[in-house]
Amino acid sequence: MREIKNIKPLHMVEIKTESKVYRGILLERPELMDKKYIVIKLDNGYNIGIKKDRIIEIKDFGEIKKEKLNKRQRYNLRDDMPVVSIIATGGTIASRVDYLTGGVHSAFSAEELISAVPELNSIAYIHGRQIFNKFSENMQPEDWVKIAKEVAREIRDKKSGIVITHGTDTMGYTAAALAFMIKTPLPIILTGAQRSSDRGSSDAAINLIHSTKVAGEADLGEVCVVMHETISDDFSLIHPATKVRKMHSSRRDAFQSINTKPIGRVSEKGIEFFLDVKRRGGRLELDTKLEKGVFLLKYHPGLKPQIIDKLLEMDYKGVVIEGTGLGHVSENLFDSIRDAVNSGIVFCMTSQTINGRVNMNVYSTGRFLMNLGVIPCEDMLPETAYVKLMWVLGHTKKYEKVREMMLTNYAREISGKSYFDTLL
Amino acid sequence: MREIKNIKPLHMVEIKTESKVYRGILLERPELMDKKYIVIKLDNGYNIGIKKDRIIEIKDFGEIKKEKLNKRQRYNLRDDMPVVSIIATGGTIASRVDYLTGGVHSAFSAEELISAVPELNSIAYIHGRQIFNKFSENMQPEDWVKIAKEVAREIRDKKSGIVITHGTDTMGYTAAALAFMIKTPLPIILTGAQRSSDRGSSDAAINLIHSTKVAGEADLGEVCVVMHETISDDFSLIHPATKVRKMHSSRRDAFQSINTKPIGRVSEKGIEFFLDVKRRGGRLELDTKLEKGVFLLKYHPGLKPQIIDKLLEMDYKGVVIEGTGLGHVSENLFDSIRDAVNSGIVFCMTSQTINGRVNMNVYSTGRFLMNLGVIPCEDMLPETAYVKLMWVLGHTKKYEKVREMMLTNYAREISGKSYFDTLL
Repeated sequence: MREIKNIKPLHMVEIKTESKVYRGILLERPELMDKKYIVIKLDNGYNIGIKKDRIIEIKDFGEIKKEKLNKRQRYNLRDDMPVVSIIATGGTIASRVDYLTGGVHSAFSAEELISAVPELNSIAYIHGRQIFNKFSENMQPEDWVKIAKEVAREIRDKKSGIVITHGTDTMGYTAAALAFMIKTPLPIILTGAQRSSDRGSSDAAINLIHSTKVAGEADLGEVCVVMHETISDDFSLIHPATKVRKMHSSRRDAFQSINTKPIGRVSEKGIEFFLDVKRRGGRLELDTKLEKGVFLLKYHPGLKPQIIDKLLEMDYKGVVIEGTGLGHVSENLFDSIRDAVNSGIVFCMTSQTINGRVNMNVYSTGRFLMNLGVIPCEDMLPETAYVKLMWVLGHTKKYEKVREMMLTNYAREISGKSYFDTLL
Repeated sequence: MREIKNIKPLHMVEIKTESKVYRGILLERPELMDKKYIVIKLDNGYNIGIKKDRIIEIKDFGEIKKEKLNKRQRYNLRDDMPVVSIIATGGTIASRVDYLTGGVHSAFSAEELISAVPELNSIAYIHGRQIFNKFSENMQPEDWVKIAKEVAREIRDKKSGIVITHGTDTMGYTAAALAFMIKTPLPIILTGAQRSSDRGSSDAAINLIHSTKVAGEADLGEVCVVMHETISDDFSLIHPATKVRKMHSSRRDAFQSINTKPIGRVSEKGIEFFLDVKRRGGRLELDTKLEKGVFLLKYHPGLKPQIIDKLLEMDYKGVVIEGTGLGHVSENLFDSIRDAVNSGIVFCMTSQTINGRVNMNVYSTGRFLMNLGVIPCEDMLPETAYVKLMWVLGHTKKYEKVREMMLTNYAREISGKSYFDTLL
């Protein structure tokens, strides 16, 4: 099929195979696609891959006039499609194996992602933009702010929904941050991949397809995470941004909703909700103020109380403790906590059990800590409480107000005393 | 039944009810037992509670001569019973509600525990000893050493098995510490309760009964945790000490084996094993050397690299990082970690996903950290790696030896690359 080499992308072509004749626009072959295929965009808007050795004849009708087509038309000729913005930040979903070292590098741009998953074009008109190329362990709070601002820009640009591709390692932290910083009139979906895009077991394509479907089609005005539900490719779950946690280092179904049901499920067949959701609409509100001086302290037996003094020296303004059980630390920390509270540091309590609710009324330890001013964070994830305290301290440093805001449910971070507690 | 008041405990009595005549030794009524009952020890060794209003007549044969009975006989007249030592350290299993404040206080002695659960006497001859009365959030590494020494003393005293009652908050840490410190010829079982003993929903009795059964009867020479399997009272699971984690703040089935199956299950019907176990026998070895200067650092976006310098100032010798995903931290920590490593601090890596294995070969971040000398702790729980590093640094400070010991499987803390990894 030597002649294909002479036909450039964006030429209108007619391709004859043994069984059929296809007419459409020859596209650049997605980088990861098998070289034995070419891709054309059919008149109905769908992309189709055709194996070269099935081709009997190709007619070239010449280059289509780019300026005659707007971008929507160039990529997809159907007009009723939603417009989804994919914001790429890096991570495994945008990575490939370096076969020299065997390691994985973060590499793809948003455009490359889209071309690697041509099915996206049949779900929505895709607008791609790469704002970082970072593994998520390198994401910092200032990156959350940048992402939030980029998302707001896309929302103001009247997109139908937003997909953010993100490394899975700290996706939960970023998702929670966006949930506090943005009141959104449309779906904001974070997604990623546990296996890199050029591996057979990659979850990148399905996660991207399901996320785009939710972003484009769901009647939802919330920040969510969409990731594989099981180890099969059939379903993905829609998780609340503030309740989702990466619960396995490598499995594709690592993401779980904690202390709540997932918001819903997405598959090829559609989207179903398990919870009441905020629907599309309302006004975009962006509020990215953050106090970065917050520490997440995991309590452990043997922890030296002086650590609290060291955090003071480092100018931390708030500490979220990941305590034990219902929200405890050793009594040998009480004095240091008292001193730090007197210096204006805010302490919040969560539990290293991850599941369940803190309840600092049950035992004397909890009551003592509350008397010191430690704020019990209900059933918030430690990571979510950490992000929230940064956001709250970005707005006020007054203890009473901080306490009130920490105990106000802004973005599903606090569940009602639900059936999960009936066992108490 | 006024006349019961005149018969003192340890009198031989004959009690006639409408349906039956019972002969045995009148026991002190367990403090928590309904006052409508009396308890007698029958000749066959079992205790039985008889409702007072069913009693028609009581004959008093006078006090039995205490000195004529050894302790075993006084409590249980069967001779084929195992001898189990219950070491009480405090916690909810040994606590009751203070109805004035509504809070829970840790209170019962081992003897009181036993009298509150008279069924124990039909499983084993119980020897009870209270060594602390602490909520487990107050347990410190020096307490692990003390418990280990007390356990060793009981083992040398030819007991059939040991039960340690312990608060659930840090039970996992203590269990791991004992597993590293003791090579045991018999079962050492930690147990506790999520609800205090005087509440209807308390799991104290069943956990104590099942633990005593395992300690007395199981052909097992390991340290384990025995706790409720489900929210019903039928089954308890036998968890490996180094792989068990409290995964819910309040549920009775909070304890789970992570990255492994439980060792087995215990119910009224018996004990079954799911894994190969070390059997009873062999020599007791006690090795309690610990370096207490180890910190468990949970990585979070925004963590200031200076924290590492502060840990150096505090004279920490080792840091277990609870990193993200496969074992990562932000690259902005690399310099501080390098400096600390050069100062002789040992860094170990675990994952905050809790489930799964760290694999620092996959991404450039992991490879870079390994080049700095960070030791990847396979599928060890962060809490277990923390305890293990204290124990290892108690034996050597030489990096190569520390590394070798951290990567040696001493007490099930490292699983083989099992079926849990086949999804990788």
